[in-house]
Amino acid sequence: MVHDTAGAVFDGFHEECGVVGVYGHPEAANLAYLALYSLQHRGQESAGITSSNGQTLLTHKGMGLVADIFDEKLIRRLKGPSAIGHNRYSTAGSTMLKNTQPLLAKYTLGSVAIAHNGNLVNAEELRVRLEAGGSIFQSTVDTEVILHLIAASQAGQPVDRIIDALSQVRGAYSLVFLSEDHMIAARDPYGFRPLVLGRIKHAGKTGYVVTSETCALDLIGAQYEREVQAGEIILFDAHGMTCYNPFPRAPSARCIFEHVYFARPDSTMFGQNVYHARKSFGRQLAREAPVEADVVIPVPDSGVPAALGYAEEARLPFEMGLIRNHYVGRTFIEPQSSIRHFGVKVKLNAQADILCGKRVIVVDDSIVRGTTCRKIVKMIRATGAREVHLRISAPPTIAPCFYGVDTPTRRELIASSHSVEEISRYVTADSLAYLSEEGMYAGLQVNGNGFCDACFTGRYPLALGSRPKGSQLSLFGEQG
Amino acid sequence: MVHDTAGAVFDGFHEECGVVGVYGHPEAANLAYLALYSLQHRGQESAGITSSNGQTLLTHKGMGLVADIFDEKLIRRLKGPSAIGHNRYSTAGSTMLKNTQPLLAKYTLGSVAIAHNGNLVNAEELRVRLEAGGSIFQSTVDTEVILHLIAASQAGQPVDRIIDALSQVRGAYSLVFLSEDHMIAARDPYGFRPLVLGRIKHAGKTGYVVTSETCALDLIGAQYEREVQAGEIILFDAHGMTCYNPFPRAPSARCIFEHVYFARPDSTMFGQNVYHARKSFGRQLAREAPVEADVVIPVPDSGVPAALGYAEEARLPFEMGLIRNHYVGRTFIEPQSSIRHFGVKVKLNAQADILCGKRVIVVDDSIVRGTTCRKIVKMIRATGAREVHLRISAPPTIAPCFYGVDTPTRRELIASSHSVEEISRYVTADSLAYLSEEGMYAGLQVNGNGFCDACFTGRYPLALGSRPKGSQLSLFGEQG
Amino acid sequence: MVHDTAGAVFDGFHEECGVVGVYGHPEAANLAYLALYSLQHRGQESAGITSSNGQTLLTHKGMGLVADIFDEKLIRRLKGPSAIGHNRYSTAGSTMLKNTQPLLAKYTLGSVAIAHNGNLVNAEELRVRLEAGGSIFQSTVDTEVILHLIAASQAGQPVDRIIDALSQVRGAYSLVFLSEDHMIAARDPYGFRPLVLGRIKHAGKTGYVVTSETCALDLIGAQYEREVQAGEIILFDAHGMTCYNPFPRAPSARCIFEHVYFARPDSTMFGQNVYHARKSFGRQLAREAPVEADVVIPVPDSGVPAALGYAEEARLPFEMGLIRNHYVGRTFIEPQSSIRHFGVKVKLNAQADILCGKRVIVVDDSIVRGTTCRKIVKMIRATGAREVHLRISAPPTIAPCFYGVDTPTRRELIASSHSVEEISRYVTADSLAYLSEEGMYAGLQVNGNGFCDACFTGRYPLALGSRPKGSQLSLFGEQG
Amino acid sequence: MVHDTAGAVFDGFHEECGVVGVYGHPEAANLAYLALYSLQHRGQESAGITSSNGQTLLTHKGMGLVADIFDEKLIRRLKGPSAIGHNRYSTAGSTMLKNTQPLLAKYTLGSVAIAHNGNLVNAEELRVRLEAGGSIFQSTVDTEVILHLIAASQAGQPVDRIIDALSQVRGAYSLVFLSEDHMIAARDPYGFRPLVLGRIKHAGKTGYVVTSETCALDLIGAQYEREVQAGEIILFDAHGMTCYNPFPRAPSARCIFEHVYFARPDSTMFGQNVYHARKSFGRQLAREAPVEADVVIPVPDSGVPAALGYAEEARLPFEMGLIRNHYVGRTFIEPQSSIRHFGVKVKLNAQADILCGKRVIVVDDSIVRGTTCRKIVKMIRATGAREVHLRISAPPTIAPCFYGVDTPTRRELIASSHSVEEISRYVTADSLAYLSEEGMYAGLQVNGNGFCDACFTGRYPLALGSRPKGSQLSLFGEQG
Repeated sequence: MVHDTAGAVFDGFHEECGVVGVYGHPEAANLAYLALYSLQHRGQESAGITSSNGQTLLTHKGMGLVADIFDEKLIRRLKGPSAIGHNRYSTAGSTMLKNTQPLLAKYTLGSVAIAHNGNLVNAEELRVRLEAGGSIFQSTVDTEVILHLIAASQAGQPVDRIIDALSQVRGAYSLVFLSEDHMIAARDPYGFRPLVLGRIKHAGKTGYVVTSETCALDLIGAQYEREVQAGEIILFDAHGMTCYNPFPRAPSARCIFEHVYFARPDSTMFGQNVYHARKSFGRQLAREAPVEADVVIPVPDSGVPAALGYAEEARLPFEMGLIRNHYVGRTFIEPQSSIRHFGVKVKLNAQADILCGKRVIVVDDSIVRGTTCRKIVKMIRATGAREVHLRISAPPTIAPCFYGVDTPTRRELIASSHSVEEISRYVTADSLAYLSEEGMYAGLQVNGNGFCDACFTGRYPLALGSRPKGSQLSLFGEQG
Repeated sequence: MVHDTAGAVFDGFHEECGVVGVYGHPEAANLAYLALYSLQHRGQESAGITSSNGQTLLTHKGMGLVADIFDEKLIRRLKGPSAIGHNRYSTAGSTMLKNTQPLLAKYTLGSVAIAHNGNLVNAEELRVRLEAGGSIFQSTVDTEVILHLIAASQAGQPVDRIIDALSQVRGAYSLVFLSEDHMIAARDPYGFRPLVLGRIKHAGKTGYVVTSETCALDLIGAQYEREVQAGEIILFDAHGMTCYNPFPRAPSARCIFEHVYFARPDSTMFGQNVYHARKSFGRQLAREAPVEADVVIPVPDSGVPAALGYAEEARLPFEMGLIRNHYVGRTFIEPQSSIRHFGVKVKLNAQADILCGKRVIVVDDSIVRGTTCRKIVKMIRATGAREVHLRISAPPTIAPCFYGVDTPTRRELIASSHSVEEISRYVTADSLAYLSEEGMYAGLQVNGNGFCDACFTGRYPLALGSRPKGSQLSLFGEQG
Repeated sequence: MVHDTAGAVFDGFHEECGVVGVYGHPEAANLAYLALYSLQHRGQESAGITSSNGQTLLTHKGMGLVADIFDEKLIRRLKGPSAIGHNRYSTAGSTMLKNTQPLLAKYTLGSVAIAHNGNLVNAEELRVRLEAGGSIFQSTVDTEVILHLIAASQAGQPVDRIIDALSQVRGAYSLVFLSEDHMIAARDPYGFRPLVLGRIKHAGKTGYVVTSETCALDLIGAQYEREVQAGEIILFDAHGMTCYNPFPRAPSARCIFEHVYFARPDSTMFGQNVYHARKSFGRQLAREAPVEADVVIPVPDSGVPAALGYAEEARLPFEMGLIRNHYVGRTFIEPQSSIRHFGVKVKLNAQADILCGKRVIVVDDSIVRGTTCRKIVKMIRATGAREVHLRISAPPTIAPCFYGVDTPTRRELIASSHSVEEISRYVTADSLAYLSEEGMYAGLQVNGNGFCDACFTGRYPLALGSRPKGSQLSLFGEQG
Repeated sequence: MVHDTAGAVFDGFHEECGVVGVYGHPEAANLAYLALYSLQHRGQESAGITSSNGQTLLTHKGMGLVADIFDEKLIRRLKGPSAIGHNRYSTAGSTMLKNTQPLLAKYTLGSVAIAHNGNLVNAEELRVRLEAGGSIFQSTVDTEVILHLIAASQAGQPVDRIIDALSQVRGAYSLVFLSEDHMIAARDPYGFRPLVLGRIKHAGKTGYVVTSETCALDLIGAQYEREVQAGEIILFDAHGMTCYNPFPRAPSARCIFEHVYFARPDSTMFGQNVYHARKSFGRQLAREAPVEADVVIPVPDSGVPAALGYAEEARLPFEMGLIRNHYVGRTFIEPQSSIRHFGVKVKLNAQADILCGKRVIVVDDSIVRGTTCRKIVKMIRATGAREVHLRISAPPTIAPCFYGVDTPTRRELIASSHSVEEISRYVTADSLAYLSEEGMYAGLQVNGNGFCDACFTGRYPLALGSRPKGSQLSLFGEQG
């Protein structure tokens, strides 16, 4: 069954994804499946895998979690020594099967499938141009323009058509393409989104894996080799691996938010271990914003490393004062006679035995709208805690991301329009402190050059060609 | 969940369909649903409806029967005063959701949905040309080329683009198109497949219905008006109904097989009642091929009218000697210790009480491979019938259809390579006779001009541009 | 998922069923499945099969049609040389999975499964007595009391316990029981419901089949042997087949409605072919109620044999003037702007080409509420028919059945409170005639002794012990 | 659809459950649902809720997680001011819908539903006795005998029948019963399994909640009042709450394993906070089994509190050296070319950046078969860790539980037949130490009297009446 709305425009501006490509392994689809499994945190709404058996591309896609979409029989059907996979999260309106990836196309040179992490900023204008030339779009994801640019290219070889296509798009893209007899990986010249390269041995031969995070390499037993470089295009075919750097060099703009929140803590991101980075943020935060207290607790699970770092630096006890319910589903049916702090209590329970009578430092990695945070603070105080000090292991989030992280619009970001003092009062904390921008980079032991921190600063490395509806981008300073 | 194969080529050559379009009725989708319901015999594998609420096209499609695909909630969601619908049967390989119709496209002038009954004979060459120009195909049905031709056309108005597109395709097509604010019906210049026009009143206003058979008009209470003429294009919009005849006139080639087998007996097809036509075939057959016998029985249900005609003309008793099981599903699980005549016995049971000791004339409308027929004859004889005479109310089927009826390949058609005598022996009948070609037209009280009878004669009114794989068309004489 | 209501009482008073038991065939479950398939007309709401592999009973049950409930894997799991099966229709309230049969119980002697066609008239009083003794009921079907009576019996052998249990129940029952190592068939002393015995050979050995109708024997290739006699109990075990007649003889009360409507036309029921019986009813009706007319048409499919008989006797042409849609599902979504004769038109279409200007005799087998009939008459007249004469091939249905046929309550039966003249006027026919009671038995060439015709006469062969709620039974004369 | 096996015997010996009862709240079923939600860790295979609207019991049950089984519509249908709920885990063979609870029965006094945490040790002998008296069992769970004992009791009031029934059963039970107009809670005289009582206010009135753990009270905003005492029976009806203590006093035998592993860390169990207890176990373990090391890491999530306690006491850094994949489904499809440490790596990833070159102490709460543990040790060592010291925050598990915790059979428990030294070698650790029995009780600051620690000691507080098949219980010393 398919329910569809033909009138939709591009709606893919706020989405998060994980990608993987495997080349030269007899069980490529199975490895891709496992990689998606370990990248599930990057997108839980849909997933898909396309394999090539040398003659034909075979695809299975579905809505939901990787473990629910695939079963052994389906994986076994995705035969062939190469495969690409994708999982995706996107905001409400666009959760349709037709928008799940890999997207596929048959064009004059054969078949091509594509899996994309990132967002293109000139997709709308390219689409208008392509439609005027007679192209018909099937999905509402920006990624599809790349397929049409490939189909419309006059270049001779698939890799040349892809280079031709990518030279026309602007934005964030970490891409894997699959055709009958080759696989191509590509990362945009800014290097917004991560993409790593690994090798996997089988029966004495070397296969290749390209994926969003190193945790996927770990699971399938592949050796981490290096990042796919910003602007690099890599062709995997019968001749092995061939690297291209066809585009002019652009300033590096790796996403700092991967370290702050998005990536899995056991991944190595842009050369650094994420868990270490987060602990460093916590330690730095303890230096910048100390406070007299009895105990440091994290908002689990994402706040754990920073809270450990804070506690270590502050020489305070670390406790799991908030216990997470591990079986939380997507919906909870609340009685009409409403329950106090319900929204947060289904996920987290504050332990009175640990917190009652204490001065508590709560560490989390971000405040978005402030509503959840406020419930947590109140729930902690309801246990009898004497003081509740909130520490955020990143700077205030003030601006939406247009390069592949699902942040809300500016209007919804409490820090875009309120001072730290105001937010502290709103969430009813005794004190609130954020990590400074400098502190964040100090935690990473780098300077800020080379990172995109637009969500914290509003400084966008790359202008939007056509504005998505409702965007307030024009309020911010932009940088080309 | 979607399971897909990107490497497939056009596979839509053998398919049957029913179409409907409703314009100017507040419950257009509901009427389209009912029309599809009454056209279910034209295709049981998938169905879909697209409605327009004036701004947006809304679609629901699925695999299976109309009654299972739609429910009240889904129909209510398909809002708007116009809707088109489609149901479809096609051979095994191509039963994929992506091939269900209506097909949709957004192109530079807006949205367009299409529902198609028939087959194009130059789809493959158009596809190659379009792909070379950068078009990307999403399905493997020939119908999609029409959408690309529309998108690629430089004409100004949608109806002009459709005329432009149709001027490039050759083959059988009865089409309905739906856009945000208008509906267009079209029938190819040969008039291969049926398409009728009706009117339906609502609250004092007149709406229009275009559909494959008049039985659909009957069910929804629409008045039959006339056939959509061969080569005619009708635009329904806010100004009412506008007719175009843009193409050069072609020789009429209406499908005789609709009368023989395909259409519902209560439909008026090409101006004649189908039940009457079939009775006439039976009567004519009794004149051409009489035989001493005690009873005439039909192979239910399709053989009933011809058997009644035969019995009337032969002044022999008519009996339901074969009883049909009305609850036959798609699959039956047969024990490994196999059952005699199982394949046919799950559907039909021969009544010994009626047939034992009798000389039996069995009337059916066609013999395809001969295997089922052979089982029926043997099952009848096993009741104790003294003689079994088989009478077929149409000429031998010797050639496949390339214009929209699902006949097997020539190799599988027993009559393409065996004489009537040989077939009679194979099916173990005491005698076998077919209706003659002349007798068939005599039954219709027309001469054969104006009909396509390629399945019975091998004379194709329209040559194939590029041959579908495995087709043995070149063995036949063709006529432009 | 199970949705359940513990507070329900017996609700099984209006239900119809088919049963089968197979003993001594290596693919017993597969044969039972096919038998249920051919008995699908006796119950379309649920079905189930229990097999015995010698040690354990294995069951699969479900809601819906046999073909949808079972697949090859499920049938293969139901291993063992014996199996029983059941399909069931019952009125709305009681369509719950827990009420599907076979019902199973483990008791002190082992396991027993039961499949039941019929209704017990003293189930409620037995239930009250059993509950007072500590029994816990799991379903709301009357059949379950038999299991509790078996479990509570002090007799030594299973067959003796079953005889003990059946000696306490009163009503209509055709039963098959399955235990680990034997199968038992039983038919009540009145013989209300049919039950036939057949033999099936496999690898030189003889297996046994017990089932509701002979059409099931035909499909699986079993030889019809005889009816299970009224009051007979047959044990099938390693020693072969042993017959018991433990109960006092009761007057024969075979259900005449099986011949009129319920059984499949190709079955031999109580020794006579059903199709023949129906044709005879039609012939007799033509003698009793002739009328000047041009054509005789049936209400398909059940009215076909009687209409053929009528036409033959009256020497009038027989035509299929009403065409049945073979793809009718359970629900149809009608527009709010309602369609004329919609309720009947989705199932039947009246052919103007055949009926216009004619004097039409319509033959059907019964009028229940009169509403459908009225729609059919009006739809026929709307084609332009000059006269519409309705002929019913059975006497008026005036009283509900308490022995296993789903007839509505007396209040809903139009003939229970209206004269033939009044009904004729209500259904807007030019004339209406029913077959007389005597004519019906004349058609069968028997006198009425030995049949239950309570639905036509209100004379119940067996009193109800406790009245079902809402029953108006007390208005009728009863006979013990 | 139901798939069933009638020949099964009681198979409920190894199962875990959570129960809840709510009395006197207009949204009782919704609160029960939320309570089950927070008790999901006690059983993930099935769940069910029965409510009473005063006249009728309404039930919905299903297989799977609470969040998947129920939706808003289903909860709203479970009307009424009282409800009981149950979730359940049991070993493979017995995962059938018919075994899900609440179990329901209609008997002579009306309806009763039951939800049970625990296991009865004399269920088999009671069942044999009841079946000999004519009872028919529907499920294979021991709980059903209680229903039959109630139905067979001659006592006058429901609560007296329940007391009568419970006086005949021996074993572990924390029970809630629901009838049309009252709810009853009961805990066995030994107090094996937990059961707590809370109050919940609504519109000025007090309602009651009885449930397995206090975390359920926290979520629904109920006030914890006290434990239901061992041997206590509480009746909730229109008159309020009435307590009974009808049974002779038995030695207290509360389950120590609830503290070690089973309960949620934020629950208060037998009067003590579970998280605190586990930290104390870790601290005590550090005192008993210190070792030179660089870092302490938990096996997440259950090992976290003990690891924190160990690290604190040992003054060593605590790190999350193993990262848990939060999206682990039930099945993973491993390639045939197997992956190193796959079985554990899909759930946990060892962080080389944290562990490489370090002497690592890994803290977990138990070793069952040793196979997972061995994989974890090897995976840690593969990161480059110099030493891996395993510390278990409980004594060796040597004996199965017969009172409601799903431990494997003795044969499968590595510690039942191997020394600590042998286990250490098997799991390839550099050293292994368990917490001592005394240390465990010291951690709880109690002496061991009053707890059941049979799983660690083999000393069973209550003999089994009839032995479950395959049990090796006779090898152990037992205590009455």
